[in-house]
Amino acid sequence: MKIKELSYSSSANLGPGYDILSLSHRAFKDEVEIEENNTGKIRIFSDNTPEDPMKNTAGLSLIQLMKDRKIKSGIDITINKGVPVGLGLGSSGASSSAAVKAFNKMFDLNLTNDEMVYYSMYGEIAACGSAHPDNVSSGIYGGMTLITSTEPVRVRKIDIKYKPHLMLVIPDIKIEEKTKLARSMVPKNIDIKDMVRQTSRLSLMLLGFLNGERQAIRDGMNDEIVEKSRNGLFPFYGEIKSMAIDENAVSACISGAGPTILIFTDERTNKNGIISGTDEILGKYGLNYKIVETEIVEGY
Amino acid sequence: MKIKELSYSSSANLGPGYDILSLSHRAFKDEVEIEENNTGKIRIFSDNTPEDPMKNTAGLSLIQLMKDRKIKSGIDITINKGVPVGLGLGSSGASSSAAVKAFNKMFDLNLTNDEMVYYSMYGEIAACGSAHPDNVSSGIYGGMTLITSTEPVRVRKIDIKYKPHLMLVIPDIKIEEKTKLARSMVPKNIDIKDMVRQTSRLSLMLLGFLNGERQAIRDGMNDEIVEKSRNGLFPFYGEIKSMAIDENAVSACISGAGPTILIFTDERTNKNGIISGTDEILGKYGLNYKIVETEIVEGY
Repeated sequence: MKIKELSYSSSANLGPGYDILSLSHRAFKDEVEIEENNTGKIRIFSDNTPEDPMKNTAGLSLIQLMKDRKIKSGIDITINKGVPVGLGLGSSGASSSAAVKAFNKMFDLNLTNDEMVYYSMYGEIAACGSAHPDNVSSGIYGGMTLITSTEPVRVRKIDIKYKPHLMLVIPDIKIEEKTKLARSMVPKNIDIKDMVRQTSRLSLMLLGFLNGERQAIRDGMNDEIVEKSRNGLFPFYGEIKSMAIDENAVSACISGAGPTILIFTDERTNKNGIISGTDEILGKYGLNYKIVETEIVEGY
Repeated sequence: MKIKELSYSSSANLGPGYDILSLSHRAFKDEVEIEENNTGKIRIFSDNTPEDPMKNTAGLSLIQLMKDRKIKSGIDITINKGVPVGLGLGSSGASSSAAVKAFNKMFDLNLTNDEMVYYSMYGEIAACGSAHPDNVSSGIYGGMTLITSTEPVRVRKIDIKYKPHLMLVIPDIKIEEKTKLARSMVPKNIDIKDMVRQTSRLSLMLLGFLNGERQAIRDGMNDEIVEKSRNGLFPFYGEIKSMAIDENAVSACISGAGPTILIFTDERTNKNGIISGTDEILGKYGLNYKIVETEIVEGY
């Protein structure tokens, strides 16, 4: 029996929601197919991810799950990786969560969503040396998710009333060990006044999404702690955000650990203006880029 | 012409909402009546607040407002102060906001709510040496309020769907310069991990109030930054909260800068258990106290 599952790309953080919020979008997807084999081993078939299960996000997740559930079986994992790696689009979380969903179905494990997030996280260890549930929560729940606890892993889906369209500005930058580097730039200590401002903006942004208020999202989605600390890595971000706001985007933020920029748009936004403005700004930095227009994925 | 306005007591912070959230309740109220006099001076009549306008929260607020609006008039301000002082119940904000509302009406100033919050804040300078909009925002808006900006002052009313009953446990403690002391105990720098946990809990608590979810409020209304830092001032708080949770309260927090404890209850809560539990705990600390049961004030 073959079972195929997919997980979409996602953007973690959303400005003031560092390490707690994530949003699924239809821009890219990973498809993972699993099938039992009679070798007793996990084998990975993929054109563009590591075939060593111990170095593969999906492989690591299933190894841990099989260990905990005492399932001894050979498994072929075929990964059709569509989410590009290293761009802040939740690539590692996508293949591991798709693999966990498929495995859960194949062996009738009846895992809860949070258990699936937990196992999918093991994949993150392969990708960036540490595990964090934000992107993988998107791959399991879809929509907008809030991490309410990491030990144990607990996730809340947020039923948002305002669903803007999305534009992903994806600069062609590859940074060695980017996630690790980007995380190391975040200050370890925060001034209490900055924390108060951050909590205020986060609250306003959440109100905006929950009540369907454009202006509240616009005013709230600003982060002078984490995004600011990464300015050296993504010096073009401030200019692009400011240009997008001028073109009446709802708001913009760095997608996960970057370099992708997530722009929220609606019918009032001058999208052509953003496209030409991006070209001008990234041209100045000598960067190639792609722009992908997409939508929020509500669920799986 | 005499104009009378009132403002109710309030509780700022609500656990993880330090310096951004506040909630109005019907437990106590200040009534302020103003009337023009022909002395050209501001005179204050009150049994239990300073009669020097420069030391009186309502007086300071009206002085600033008259200065900005170039209103030269004698004003008698009669304050019937019902909100007890120094207990974390928004006492200073109550009389200043009531005075500003009355003055706004008398002179047809058409101040916006945020302008009224701004002027009411001047009263806080008299009360605690610095101005903060949280409690005064309650006196102007009612219900639950979010401070979205301090310069300029911007406040958002939060339309909450879940409206628990309230119990105020008011220990009979007078602490000299309590608000200043309580603020000085809050750490100046916060570990980023603590900030992430705080933002996660705050988000969950807001979801709970907005969506009407008891358990989300219960899980979210926990603060290990500000409340923890004030443990030395209110060593009984942890025990009372834990006892209240055991008696199935929705949650509990320190009201403003304390010492009052705000307990959220509903039909599932064993209120008699909380009453006797409080007696036992505060008895151990040799403290007299009052318990007031009350409701949220939705607006003015």
